[in-house]
Amino acid sequence: MGSLETTTPSSPLFNPLDLDDFRTQAHKAVDFIADYYASIESRPVLPRVEPGYLRKTLLPQIPPTKPTPFESILSEIETHIMPGMTHWLSPNFFAYFPATVSTAGFLGEMLSSSFNSVGFNWLASPAATELESIVMDWLASLLKLPHQFTFSGSGGGVLQGTTSEAILCTLVAARERAIEKSSSVTIQKLVVYGSDQTHSTFPKACKIAGISPSNIRTIPTSVDTEFALSPELLKRQMEADVAAGLVPLYLCATVGTTSSNAVDPLGGLADVARDYGVWVHVDAAYAGSACICPEFRQYLDGVEKADSLSLSPHKWLLTYLDCCCLWVRNRDSLISALATDPEYLKNRPSESGSVVDYKDWQVGLGRRFRALRLWMVLKMHGVTNLQSHIRSDVGLAMLFERLVRGDRQFEVVVPRRFGLVCFRLKGVGEGLNRRVLEEVNRTGTVYMTHTVVGGEYVMRFAVGATLTEERHVVAAWEIIRGKADELLMGEMDSL
Amino acid sequence: MGSLETTTPSSPLFNPLDLDDFRTQAHKAVDFIADYYASIESRPVLPRVEPGYLRKTLLPQIPPTKPTPFESILSEIETHIMPGMTHWLSPNFFAYFPATVSTAGFLGEMLSSSFNSVGFNWLASPAATELESIVMDWLASLLKLPHQFTFSGSGGGVLQGTTSEAILCTLVAARERAIEKSSSVTIQKLVVYGSDQTHSTFPKACKIAGISPSNIRTIPTSVDTEFALSPELLKRQMEADVAAGLVPLYLCATVGTTSSNAVDPLGGLADVARDYGVWVHVDAAYAGSACICPEFRQYLDGVEKADSLSLSPHKWLLTYLDCCCLWVRNRDSLISALATDPEYLKNRPSESGSVVDYKDWQVGLGRRFRALRLWMVLKMHGVTNLQSHIRSDVGLAMLFERLVRGDRQFEVVVPRRFGLVCFRLKGVGEGLNRRVLEEVNRTGTVYMTHTVVGGEYVMRFAVGATLTEERHVVAAWEIIRGKADELLMGEMDSL
Repeated sequence: MGSLETTTPSSPLFNPLDLDDFRTQAHKAVDFIADYYASIESRPVLPRVEPGYLRKTLLPQIPPTKPTPFESILSEIETHIMPGMTHWLSPNFFAYFPATVSTAGFLGEMLSSSFNSVGFNWLASPAATELESIVMDWLASLLKLPHQFTFSGSGGGVLQGTTSEAILCTLVAARERAIEKSSSVTIQKLVVYGSDQTHSTFPKACKIAGISPSNIRTIPTSVDTEFALSPELLKRQMEADVAAGLVPLYLCATVGTTSSNAVDPLGGLADVARDYGVWVHVDAAYAGSACICPEFRQYLDGVEKADSLSLSPHKWLLTYLDCCCLWVRNRDSLISALATDPEYLKNRPSESGSVVDYKDWQVGLGRRFRALRLWMVLKMHGVTNLQSHIRSDVGLAMLFERLVRGDRQFEVVVPRRFGLVCFRLKGVGEGLNRRVLEEVNRTGTVYMTHTVVGGEYVMRFAVGATLTEERHVVAAWEIIRGKADELLMGEMDSL
Repeated sequence: MGSLETTTPSSPLFNPLDLDDFRTQAHKAVDFIADYYASIESRPVLPRVEPGYLRKTLLPQIPPTKPTPFESILSEIETHIMPGMTHWLSPNFFAYFPATVSTAGFLGEMLSSSFNSVGFNWLASPAATELESIVMDWLASLLKLPHQFTFSGSGGGVLQGTTSEAILCTLVAARERAIEKSSSVTIQKLVVYGSDQTHSTFPKACKIAGISPSNIRTIPTSVDTEFALSPELLKRQMEADVAAGLVPLYLCATVGTTSSNAVDPLGGLADVARDYGVWVHVDAAYAGSACICPEFRQYLDGVEKADSLSLSPHKWLLTYLDCCCLWVRNRDSLISALATDPEYLKNRPSESGSVVDYKDWQVGLGRRFRALRLWMVLKMHGVTNLQSHIRSDVGLAMLFERLVRGDRQFEVVVPRRFGLVCFRLKGVGEGLNRRVLEEVNRTGTVYMTHTVVGGEYVMRFAVGATLTEERHVVAAWEIIRGKADELLMGEMDSL
């Protein structure tokens, strides 16, 4: 903004950041948000709108010429936006995995936004860079990650937006390492490995990185291993690939798969991978957060043999979106694959080699001050509370599991390890299970999703939305059981 | 959270989102931020800390066990974080390109965060998806983009985090299209084109996508074309590549280069590219926003022949980070390259094909409700004000340009088109110019950066930080001139 004559005299001076307005309106927004949270339970968790609903209501095809007052915007949000929201923070949200929040996370986000710093290199935001390194080391220590994954070792941590980016960055590092190592290695020869339970983001990242789709191995799992990837099958596949003249490159192992929370045996898989010089990445997006509790840390056993690990505090550590932690054993391999050095970013601290330039640890150049949020969550809550938060969610999932197991019409399909319960109506096909899920979701009072594991359609009940209490879990179960009873009764009647 | 017996009796119930606390503390944060903005001018824009400063002050090597009160955290931020901040929002920030903000953007960010919705597909957040489509069409209309770039045409728009992601996604779409078209095309044969002024994120995205570094063409520019890419040189390079058995794939043209705001001739370049079936992407990250003013729209002429366009409202349209708009002419090519369809995300609206699932338009799966921020900026300010904001910034840059031109010791190196002035001390080498820049930045009162164009070291003065007024520009010029005088005097003395 400015105050030059180029502003035509007829237009009043435009000040996009008038501090009186800022203060007044931001206070109003705080109250609007607190009121929203207070009312969220009474809103349908899954909206009842049809595709295209908003274009019909938000009529203008072009943006408005004149300003709209904030009050009118809040009222449009209430009238038009809210009815089309899937309320992820509703205590009745049991779909996918929860995206958890906290006052500390919200405050951290406010402060981080307010700085609007773009910490692509150290100089562009020393505090943002250094706090990120510190907080990543903090979390590494809390998770008892190997020393090499920290900045005092050969590695270090960086905040990414999503697991996809974490996988993409490490995959490119692995790819560059492999191609540099031998002139006979071409990108077409590189093979990557996951299981049929690995998240869909893995093959997508591979495709983006130019790995041939025919070289993405999806190794089958079964109920025998509780849907974990078998080191023996991995070994056989790698042997076959090498025999075919291919080059094993990258393994994505998972701690807490999306479908059913299966846990791949990291140590055994890494032992196999090591024989083939393969980069081992551990995707612990959801369940990794639980490993801040000593009783869950076992699920990360073997990570000391891996090359990288990612987990997303926006899933289970109360940070709000987006916050995905990536640690690497060897930061140089990441940096040498992703570094850029244009003239307009050159500066003495970077040239000295004594600083971290996070642009060389990620896909993009620009980056927000995400570390502040994670730092504030750790600091304002403290580790003891965060552990009790994990345990409380797991406790609620155990409660739901008991309710399911206590009803002989239902069965729990895979062992429950964290906050996810996979269950189904016993002895009936996909159709009826699917209808139960649809009827339950149609109530608007509960939102669950489904998956297919081992060829079976199952319902997923993921506990952990920040506002969920015991009574919501119990009420959800009553609705599920009620809908199942109705549908089973209908089936009986039609026989 | 919950209230189960698994919480040990000794630990008080942990409620991470207590609404009374939320309200009280968020109000405190609003005041803290407004006070920060009010005081920002008095803070050194570039910090005076040494690498590692924060690790020395934030002593604990592990995260705290117990909670820290919010007040203490605010005081730690003031004591430890602030001294290490590069204050991007300072009115004295003239480095890189500004990252602009507004009350509307801040409120939009608060509301967007508060929903914490993860709109990977329509059902997961209908309002978020639909508002994004609407607002992208709005901006397309404001920029007079061709009809095909909108949802009522064959294309549409999506919000990415950064230009890097926009380039990567379209590059992968182009790559897949090329490889599918002919079985003789391998990734090793694909060639991509930019100029020596194209942003460093372009070769980086190419590398990530598996394009061979030896196939990334960096076509030289010169002062003769004002550092714009020449269609004639592009044509010659493509001819040579085809003659060598290679396959031209993708051109990244720029409207407003980072170094000097050069504008590539889109129409002429696209005409050449079309003969070779090349995907043309227009990177208008910074200058694209100016094209909402009719008098600047000429710089986008030719975009109707391009395949995609990206621009970042977080640079010049007051949205806060991160907000990068990407439009494509043909949404199907993007989707077919990036779509995934795992069982756990299957749902009826997606299967009906009647909805937009933005996960298939980007690298990652998860995504924030970014559209709310952009919508609120357009709506709360209105187009007229946004245009006057652009014009006011350009007016301030014109003022600075006049000041430079009025001093015979200095010269403006390239024509000023938008808010960036590239200038240098005339008739002296890099050394003295570099020292002027360093001395100016050392004052803490002004922060500028440099670049090299046409082999010459130049200072970049980028006007547009939201709080910058005429007096800051004038004061900055006084400091620059003063430091130059001092150094020139010193030179004279030492002769």
